Parts: sequence; structure tokens; C-alpha cells
Amino acid sequence: MVLESPGRMVLKEFPLPKIGPEDGLLRVEMVGVCGSDVGMYRGKTSRLPRPYPILMGHEIFGTIAKIGEEASKRRGLKEGDRAIVEFTFGCGICSDCLKGDYTHCESHLTYGSTISCKEPPHLWGAYSEYLYLPPRAMVHKVRNDLLPEVGVLICAVLGNAIRWLRIMGNLSIGETVIIQGPGQQGLAGVIVAKEAGAGKVIVTGVTKDRSRFELAKSFGADVIIDIEKVNPVEVVREITHGRMADLVMDVTGNPKGAQTTIDLVKKKGTVILPGLYGMNTEVPLILDKIIFKEAKIQGVFSHDFRSVLPAIQLAESKKYPLERMVTHKFQLKEAEKAVRVAGREVEGEDPIKVVIIP
Amino acid sequence: MVLESPGRMVLKEFPLPKIGPEDGLLRVEMVGVCGSDVGMYRGKTSRLPRPYPILMGHEIFGTIAKIGEEASKRRGLKEGDRAIVEFTFGCGICSDCLKGDYTHCESHLTYGSTISCKEPPHLWGAYSEYLYLPPRAMVHKVRNDLLPEVGVLICAVLGNAIRWLRIMGNLSIGETVIIQGPGQQGLAGVIVAKEAGAGKVIVTGVTKDRSRFELAKSFGADVIIDIEKVNPVEVVREITHGRMADLVMDVTGNPKGAQTTIDLVKKKGTVILPGLYGMNTEVPLILDKIIFKEAKIQGVFSHDFRSVLPAIQLAESKKYPLERMVTHKFQLKEAEKAVRVAGREVEGEDPIKVVIIP
Amino acid sequence: MVLESPGRMVLKEFPLPKIGPEDGLLRVEMVGVCGSDVGMYRGKTSRLPRPYPILMGHEIFGTIAKIGEEASKRRGLKEGDRAIVEFTFGCGICSDCLKGDYTHCESHLTYGSTISCKEPPHLWGAYSEYLYLPPRAMVHKVRNDLLPEVGVLICAVLGNAIRWLRIMGNLSIGETVIIQGPGQQGLAGVIVAKEAGAGKVIVTGVTKDRSRFELAKSFGADVIIDIEKVNPVEVVREITHGRMADLVMDVTGNPKGAQTTIDLVKKKGTVILPGLYGMNTEVPLILDKIIFKEAKIQGVFSHDFRSVLPAIQLAESKKYPLERMVTHKFQLKEAEKAVRVAGREVEGEDPIKVVIIP
Amino acid sequence: MVLESPGRMVLKEFPLPKIGPEDGLLRVEMVGVCGSDVGMYRGKTSRLPRPYPILMGHEIFGTIAKIGEEASKRRGLKEGDRAIVEFTFGCGICSDCLKGDYTHCESHLTYGSTISCKEPPHLWGAYSEYLYLPPRAMVHKVRNDLLPEVGVLICAVLGNAIRWLRIMGNLSIGETVIIQGPGQQGLAGVIVAKEAGAGKVIVTGVTKDRSRFELAKSFGADVIIDIEKVNPVEVVREITHGRMADLVMDVTGNPKGAQTTIDLVKKKGTVILPGLYGMNTEVPLILDKIIFKEAKIQGVFSHDFRSVLPAIQLAESKKYPLERMVTHKFQLKEAEKAVRVAGREVEGEDPIKVVIIP
Repeated sequence: MVLESPGRMVLKEFPLPKIGPEDGLLRVEMVGVCGSDVGMYRGKTSRLPRPYPILMGHEIFGTIAKIGEEASKRRGLKEGDRAIVEFTFGCGICSDCLKGDYTHCESHLTYGSTISCKEPPHLWGAYSEYLYLPPRAMVHKVRNDLLPEVGVLICAVLGNAIRWLRIMGNLSIGETVIIQGPGQQGLAGVIVAKEAGAGKVIVTGVTKDRSRFELAKSFGADVIIDIEKVNPVEVVREITHGRMADLVMDVTGNPKGAQTTIDLVKKKGTVILPGLYGMNTEVPLILDKIIFKEAKIQGVFSHDFRSVLPAIQLAESKKYPLERMVTHKFQLKEAEKAVRVAGREVEGEDPIKVVIIP
Repeated sequence: MVLESPGRMVLKEFPLPKIGPEDGLLRVEMVGVCGSDVGMYRGKTSRLPRPYPILMGHEIFGTIAKIGEEASKRRGLKEGDRAIVEFTFGCGICSDCLKGDYTHCESHLTYGSTISCKEPPHLWGAYSEYLYLPPRAMVHKVRNDLLPEVGVLICAVLGNAIRWLRIMGNLSIGETVIIQGPGQQGLAGVIVAKEAGAGKVIVTGVTKDRSRFELAKSFGADVIIDIEKVNPVEVVREITHGRMADLVMDVTGNPKGAQTTIDLVKKKGTVILPGLYGMNTEVPLILDKIIFKEAKIQGVFSHDFRSVLPAIQLAESKKYPLERMVTHKFQLKEAEKAVRVAGREVEGEDPIKVVIIP
Repeated sequence: MVLESPGRMVLKEFPLPKIGPEDGLLRVEMVGVCGSDVGMYRGKTSRLPRPYPILMGHEIFGTIAKIGEEASKRRGLKEGDRAIVEFTFGCGICSDCLKGDYTHCESHLTYGSTISCKEPPHLWGAYSEYLYLPPRAMVHKVRNDLLPEVGVLICAVLGNAIRWLRIMGNLSIGETVIIQGPGQQGLAGVIVAKEAGAGKVIVTGVTKDRSRFELAKSFGADVIIDIEKVNPVEVVREITHGRMADLVMDVTGNPKGAQTTIDLVKKKGTVILPGLYGMNTEVPLILDKIIFKEAKIQGVFSHDFRSVLPAIQLAESKKYPLERMVTHKFQLKEAEKAVRVAGREVEGEDPIKVVIIP
Repeated sequence: MVLESPGRMVLKEFPLPKIGPEDGLLRVEMVGVCGSDVGMYRGKTSRLPRPYPILMGHEIFGTIAKIGEEASKRRGLKEGDRAIVEFTFGCGICSDCLKGDYTHCESHLTYGSTISCKEPPHLWGAYSEYLYLPPRAMVHKVRNDLLPEVGVLICAVLGNAIRWLRIMGNLSIGETVIIQGPGQQGLAGVIVAKEAGAGKVIVTGVTKDRSRFELAKSFGADVIIDIEKVNPVEVVREITHGRMADLVMDVTGNPKGAQTTIDLVKKKGTVILPGLYGMNTEVPLILDKIIFKEAKIQGVFSHDFRSVLPAIQLAESKKYPLERMVTHKFQLKEAEKAVRVAGREVEGEDPIKVVIIP
């Protein structure tokens, strides 16, 4: 399903690419609909121009259909293996790649958004039966009995949370962490916070998040705060005896959420901001509060293999029912509807994670 | 029970001190016998001279018998509360204390070893019915229903492990950690490694550690290696596909254990050494292995309130049956026997943790 | 000179306190006028209520007039020694002090602002001939030949810059650093950046900052940007070949300055914000820029002995003509005028640092 | 000059390789003789087997003779530019490379030691008129007026020191650093320590190091200790008022040097060990000293572009007369003698840095 231009998706056929010794082909079994897919569909601008037509889809789970000999050796993968694929792969040569920051690669090589499907071999997104795996594709084997619903969440949901909370946020044993927004990223945040040994995991949301609150609790959240009913700052002050939280992550996507973090975080604490509030949205912050607290605000963006590998282990341990986050499934031909449901344009639907089964 | 000189313990009575607004008195309910107590009993030299006579005992659990008004307010404690006490309290003024490193305080103010019980108010150790709490004593309230057997392990066993593995070792989600030596510190290490989200916890020991291995497994160890039967380096190489372990901690107290760490750790990995191999023991290391790997060897020593507070939370959660580590209990008058059992001088006894109930 | 209430300073006499073994008395030789003094004078609200009457003055240089035996030993000070005093001293007991963060002490014990001069022994500020030194006062000996104009800058100006740029900002050899605002903190920032080995030190300001620009250059600034003439973002993009700066510090006190930092910093770079923009000033930020860059915003506030000790060494090395920052000197009875000059209320005066000589 | 087997170097000719769009060719102008070259010449075993015949030489300075279009764009280099080349270049695909640790690349792709010159295009070392630059070669432009004697020191000497002391050792403003061994790495260490703002740089050596001591002083060393005349531990204790050094680096290559570090370092201090003591040399250490101090021993090995780029800036600043380290120059045909002089096999010669001019 190709996004020809904002708001216009059409079914297209591309020839299967010829696979050499260093590349491969994935039979896509399930693909997640990301919030950024909704943005692209709506024509929302981002930091980069959109290279329409785009074959969207970058939360990828599937089976190796074909793999070159060299690639097979490197990745430990053979045909028939189940695999997940990170959304980005660096050029390997630029300064960011050399530093190990391939998610910041100057070439912006990512599935489902930055490479037009006009570029051969075309299959640069997973809203598709097959996905092309270039030599540098970050493809990882997973256990064959892993549920597709789990596999599709490993990179962008669980991998993000591990990177954001543990690797960049340094969340430690016994700490109090607040997660604002019980969507998929917030829920994965609960899991990761528990895994990192958090002493108290507090989740905030609004009244209509009730079912998400239940899921958060089943993943281990200790305290739920409905900000429409109580003042979260007051509640956290009481819970923490005035110390406030060691770590606060805002995944509401709402400027108000970002503002609250500063009041919720303790002296010398850390605020994790994965956004996204919009490239044109100015969020008014009382910076002096950050200063007197000597707090840190850390921008975070996506995952890489350092967080994806532990995410695979965690998913394979089956310790948490991750699959319960997948609330809606669609066929490939329904991709447009899938995107609109994910974008909450369809009344009566309250999705956490929408997926497409090609 | 006062250690008058190496090998000579006698029962003594001291008057109960008068408590002012800033200090307090603890009724000791249980005290752990530390390996260093055994050393003191045997007259082993340490980095500091021993100020005999010494009232030993620094793994402390009890009830607040008396507490001054000011101290009560500061510590949130009242008479009748159950509490644990850290083994050290700084002078508050020296450069180490000002940096927050009161465990390195130049005055070496610790219970049960560095202050002679000749010094008023005498009660500077917990092999005693009562313990004096000076204004700077690091005393923490615990839940009244906490088992003494758990309370006694919080500071020096669980608190140590949190500091060593998580705070100083930065153990992270999904990592492979090896703990050499399944004694009390190793077992607590298993718990902390699991809490920090370790992907694989490997415990090594010898054949006669069988019961400890069982306990390690019940605390969450994934792999047990009997180094008398297999080569741990080979086993770990296989398990990790050649990458070796992210973190290795040696709590064998055996120089051979320290040597093995270097082969077990991965490139850029971390070795945690809490010792204690002896102040006169030279351990031969092939340092070039550390250099080519760019590995880090981190000496670690004891706990402080930054690791004790999360340890309290973890203990109070009752998630792990910590009390199973306490294998031997003695009365105060049997203190000498307790020390000898802990020192493995008593045939047929295979203690993990020995405690005394005053 | 006591600030009785906003806008009203009067000369008062207090009895000299009796000094015991643990405290002391400083004969103040010079005191700096801080921007926060101006705020207090104007009745500007802060995070804490002001305990009028206040004896202001917390940038302190003087001679030990009297010191107790115990304090003398601890601090290595004797009568007649020249000394500087940090603005804050912790209670030594609260959780922040125990962590080594005495500048965040819950008791807020600071000179010149948080303790009313109604409190005996009254001499809690350095707009005075004498200053009281309580047992925990952070008083440091300096060389007797140090210029008062240099001594007065060590803590709050140089010590701040070391803490902000090097300790919290981790500024490293060869890095590009931008300092926005060539006032005293910016100028000290230039020195510290050079000392930390910065490859390129860029200072931004406005056209009327000409004399400050000259001083910046003499301290080692490599590039000066007049933001009224050129676009700093463009200039930095060119200088850095598009990579932008490793570290950006905004000491303009102007919300516009804070906003620019986000455009000036590189991917994964660090923004240091010492403020102060006002506790009621909301600064609108496009947070998504921080997120895509994975930049870090670090609030910083004041100095402690970990930055003051190296600042003393640096000052004593006489490597930089720090005294050139002191542009205005006043007598104690002119304190009110000094504050108004510092507050730029006096036409024709363009102060960098205003000091008072009691 | 090809090292056919230990102790046997012969002059050989290889055809100049054809250069495609992604690779290049360097005309070598000067190459440093590394201590490891001496080891290879002598047949000393290392962690990897030696792939004789080897074209040695990995401290490289020269002029771009030919460069492909793509490589030219990537590296900002054109024919005629002067350039230096790092000794290693990763495969770009293995886990270490993806992390940014290409010096730990599993393929061990380095100039002058791990790739046999049997492998086309043969020119894998700089004891040669030309050096092959594969697509991933870490080649950096330097100013055309840079002295070859300086250029040849940038990567392996200055780049190492920046990485070891500043990046891995976190050397900070005002700190006391001890460098044991005033050879080339020690001398570069002095420069880097000064650049990082060290308060006191202490260099230790033996009586015959007199000329090196002079050079160390001219680079900024504050204290010189001849360990044949005084006890360095005593001297440092006095200088630091008992606190000992923040950072100690041992570049003596002598086990005795490694042992001393532990006594010289402060509580919570850092020991930097670049070796190399020999893969079969066991160094006896009293580990308990490390433990009570909670010191850190950090193995370090070589440089990468994160330290080479600042090293280029520092060299180009001409702030330090680096060229004074080059004490011996030889022609290519004298390579064998150059190696033997570097190996101190030639009586009467006391080299710091030996170079070859092809």
C-alpha cells in the first residue's frame, strides 16, 4: 500500500528484488501502525521533506524469505527464521555512524518514511508483503514461537522504552518513576521501569484511559493518577514525602504534559522527553524551576540495537503479556482504515496498538 | 560480648547512656556475624589498627528504645519503631563527608570495629543488648512486620549488592552478569542482578556449594557453574557466543577468583572487586588482558544510604525469601561460637549467614 | 548595610559575636554585588520568601579575624590568613547534605539572603565589616598576595563556571563551546572553556558589549558574534561545517537566549542553563528540536567546594587577569548605589562586576 | 620494507593499486616506529598470531597521491592534501563497529600488523613509499604547513593521550595527575593533562631520563620525581597533603610501575593502564588496596577519531613543540636499524621517537 501523497493510499505491485550475497528479503507477517504514519498520511510536516510516494511501515515482524550467504553468516539468520527489523540503518561511514549513532546517520536511511518507493528495489516499507533487507539492515532473529503481536512491539515500543528509561535515563533500583500518558510507549515504559527495579511506578492519564490504566496495573504500575480528578503534583508530593520523582517521562504528546514534568521531578532529577509535540509547537516552560532544581531534560528519539537486543530477550521471556497492547488488526488492503483508526478518526474505537497483517 | 584481644571474648555490662535531643538508643534484636568479625577475632591485621577492647557487631536490626526529640524528627523514628543501622556514620565535616562519601570519612567512625568500647558511651557495637545511636547514626525505619532475619541482611548484604552491581557496576537490562562465589554477598548479587533486569545471571562455585546453588536458583540465577567440574571460561564463551560477560563480580575472597574475572569479562566490560583477599596478598594478574579488552576493574567497599534505602524497599516487598540465607542463630552468650561457626572452624557446619540474638 | 525591606538599606551596628572552638569571624575586605542582590533590593520574588531585614553579600573575600581551635585545625586556617567563603553551607544531616549536595540543603543556609540578620549572631552577610563563620562555613584559605578583586570572583564567578561547564557540562578537549552573554559569568566561562581545552570558544553578545568582547578575546575567546549584526546560528553552522556546538551555555538571562541554544547545539549536544529568567517567566521552546537531536538541557545552579578548590588554584596561577572584570568599587556606605549601578539603574555606567569595600 | 619473518626485513616492490571511486593512495612522507613494531621484529607473541610477511608501519603521515571521487567527498580530501591515517579501520558491520568501537572490530583490520602484505593490494603498512587507503580508512586532512614530525605523532601519541587521560580518565580542571614514564606517551600525557586543566602534573622516571624530564618540564610538568632518588609515594603524599593523586597513568611498561599506581592514587581515584607489560607477564597486585580505596583500574588501548580530531586541532595550534619528541630519523632502507634503535639495541642511542622517511 503506497502513500502517493497525503491522504491517498493505493495498492501497488513491485517486482521481487534479486538478492545477492549481502542482502535479503523479508516476508512481512505483521507491521505496526506508528503515530508518525498517521502524521505522514495527514501530510504533517516533519524535520525532513517527505519523498512521496512512500511505502510506509517501520515496525516490522516477519520471516526471512531469502538471504544472501554473507548476510546469513553475519546476522546468524537463515531462510524460514522469524525476524524483526529496526526502522533505521546507517550508511556506516559518516561521523555519526562511526560513533555508533547510526540512528542519527546523516543519510537518514529509514524504512517507511525517508526513502521513496520509487527508489529500487522499491520495498522500503512494511505495509507490503515483502520488505527489502539491504546489507546494513538491522535485522534480528527471534524465537520461532514468538507471537507476531509481540514481535511487532519489540523495536519501536519495548526497545524505545529500554533506551529512554534505562540507557539514557539511568533509571535505577528503588527509584520513583512517573510515566505521563498510558499509550503504548507509556505501557512499555511501565514494563521497563519494573525490569530496571523501580521502587514505585506512577502512571498518569485522563479519565477515558481506564482500560489503559488496567493494563498498566497488570504490567506492574504501582500508582495510577487520573489528572482530571486529582492534581498529580500534589499526589506525587505526598507519595514521595516531598522529594518528588527521580525520573519523569512524558509520552502524552501534549505540551501540558511537558510542562508538568518540571514540577514532578526532584532536585537533580531527570526528565525524559520523547515528544512529539510538533515541529511548530512552542511549549512555554518556566526554566528557572529547572535551574533551581538542577534538573536535566533529556531529549530522546527511537531505539538502536543496544536496546533492541535486551528487548528481544525480555519479549522472549514471556514475563509480560505484551500482546495485550495490540487492540486492532487489519488486512493490508485495509491499511488506510488502519491508519485512520490509529489516528483516532474512527469513532468508537479506542486503539492502543493498531497492526496490519499483509 | 566484648573482644578484649584476639581470640578472647568476655561478657561485660555497661551503663545505659543518657539520651539527649539528638541521639538515641537501639534495643538490638538481631546482629549478623560478618566475615570481618571473624578476622578481628583471629587478630588479622587490616588497614587500620584494632582498638581493643572492641564490642563487635555492625549488621544491626532492632527496636528504638529511646530517641531524642530532634533525632526523632530528622529520622522519622519514634520509640518502638523497628530500625536498621548502617555500619558507618561520617564526621560530616571532612572533605569525604562533604562530597557525600561518608563511608570514606577520615575519622573512620564505624560500629563494631574502629571505636573501642572503652570510649563512652561504650555501646559501639551490636553484640550487645543495646546500641548507642549518635546524632549522625544512619538509622532507618523499617516495617514492623519485617523478619529480623531479613532486617539484618538489608544493609551489609543487600545494600552492598545494590551499590556494587547497580550503582557502581551500572548493570543494565538484558546484560549477562557472572557472580563468582555463592555466599551471602553472591546470593544477594543474584537478587540485585535480577532486579536490575539482567538477561542472564551466572553463578560459579565449587561442588560443596550445592545447597547455595539451590538458593541461587531460587533467587533467579539462570546458570550455575561448578568450576571443579567444568571450565567456567569455556562455558561462558559458549553461552555468550564468544562475547563473554558484561559484568563479573568476584566474591570468592580467593585470588584465583580475581584472576578468572579477567578472562570472563567482555571487551569494555566491568569487573567488580569487593575483595577481600588480604592486605598482604599479592594477586598475580596478566594486566595486558585488561588493556587489550579496555576492561575496567572497580574496587568496591560497603554500602551507604543511597543503596540501603532501595534495599529496604526491596526487602519490604517480600519478593525474595531473603531469610533463607540465615542458616545459624546463636544467643549472645554463644557469640564466640557464632564467630567460629561463621569462620568455618566448626566441623559439619556449612553456614551462609550466622546471626546472634542478644 | 541592612536591607530592611525592598528598596530600603540602612547602616546598622551589631555586636561582635563570641567565637568558640568551632566557629570564626572574618574581616570582610571586599564583597561582590551579585545580580540576585539587585533582585532582593527590588523586592523581586524568588523560590523562597525573603526574611527581611537581610544583611546582603555572599561573594566574600577577607581576612580571618578570629578562629576557634577546632575550626582552625579542620580548615587549615589561622588568624591573619586571607580567605574566601562559599555562599552556602549545609546542615550536614539532611539527605541532600549526606549525598554531598549541600548547596541543595533543605535548610537553605546561605549568606546574604536566607538567614535574617535578626538571627544571632546577626552577621549573616558580607555587606559588613565582619562576617560570622559557623562551624560548617565553607571557608578556604587563599594566598596572601591574591588581589581582593580576584578573590571576590573565585567562588561565584570562576567556581560557577568550572562546575557548569566542566563538571556538569563535561566540556572536553577540542570541543566547540558557545557562551551567550559576555557578562561576568560568560567571561569566566571563556577562561574555564580554555582551561578545559576547548577547541573553539565562541562568545555571543550585542553591539554595546564591545568592551566585554575585548575582555573575552583577551581571556581566549576564538570567535565573537554580535547577534545584532549577524545570525549566530548561520555563523556557527559555517564555523562547524554544519555540526553545530558541542556545548552551549546561556548566561544572557534573556528568554531569547535560551531559545537560541536549541538551534546552536549539535546532535547529542548539551545546553547548560544557569538562568535566571525569572520564576514567573515562561520561555517558549520548540521541544521537538531537542528530541530529534537527542540534546540535553541541564539546569545548573551555583558552585560547591569541588569547583571552588580548582578555582582557587586557577586564580592563584595568575594565568588570567581576572581582576579586569571588576569595573566598579564602592565603600560600604555607598552600598545602595553599588546595587543600583549593578542593576544598571545608573546611566552612563556599564558595569561588569561591582564590588563593595567595607 | 617487508618483515618476512621475525628478525628478517627485505626491500620489496609492489605494483601501485588501481584506485576506484571509494578508495585512495597515500604517498607516505614519514612513519613512526612504534614499540609494537620492535616486538613484531623480535617475534614477540601478541594476542593474535602474526600474518608474516608483514609490511609494518602504522603511525602515518603523508600526501594524498590519489583519491576516488566518493572518498574525496566523504573525507573532504583531494590529491595533494596532507593527511594522517589512523592505524585501524573497522569492518563497519560487526557489533563493535555498530557501537562505534571500531578499534575493537572483530576483523582486526589494522595497518602494519594484522593484514599480511600478501593480501592485495599489498600496501597495508607505511614502511613503504605508498599506502593503500580502503574505503573505510580513517584518513584525516591536516594543514599543509604541519611538520611531518608533528603529523606522525598525532594519532598514536597525542590521540592516545587524549583518549586515555581525558575521555576515559575524565581528567578535570585542578586535578593532580601522575604520569609514570617520560617516554613519548608520557610526554604527550603531560601536554594533554595541561590542556585538560590539570592543577598539578607529576612525572616520574629514572635518573637516566634526564633529557626527557627537561622535555616534560617544557611541556608543562609541574613536578619531576626521580624514583631512583626519592620514594614517589612519599613525595606525592606530601605534595597532596595526604590525599594522593586523582589520576595515575603508568606508561613505564614495567610491572613495578603498575604496582606503584595503587599506592599513588587517591580514594575513589582512577588508574589508567595502557600497558604493555607482556601477554605472559603476571603483575602481582595487592587488590585489597584497590578495594578499600574504591579505586578504578581502567585498561586503555589506542585511539579513535574522537580523540584524533582534537589531537589534530591541538597539533595545528602549535602550542607545544611536539616535534622535539622526534629524536631519530632514518631512510626507508635503514628501517631495520630504525627498529633496532627504537628497541634500544644500539648502544649510545637514547631515542624518544624514531621515524622513517620513505
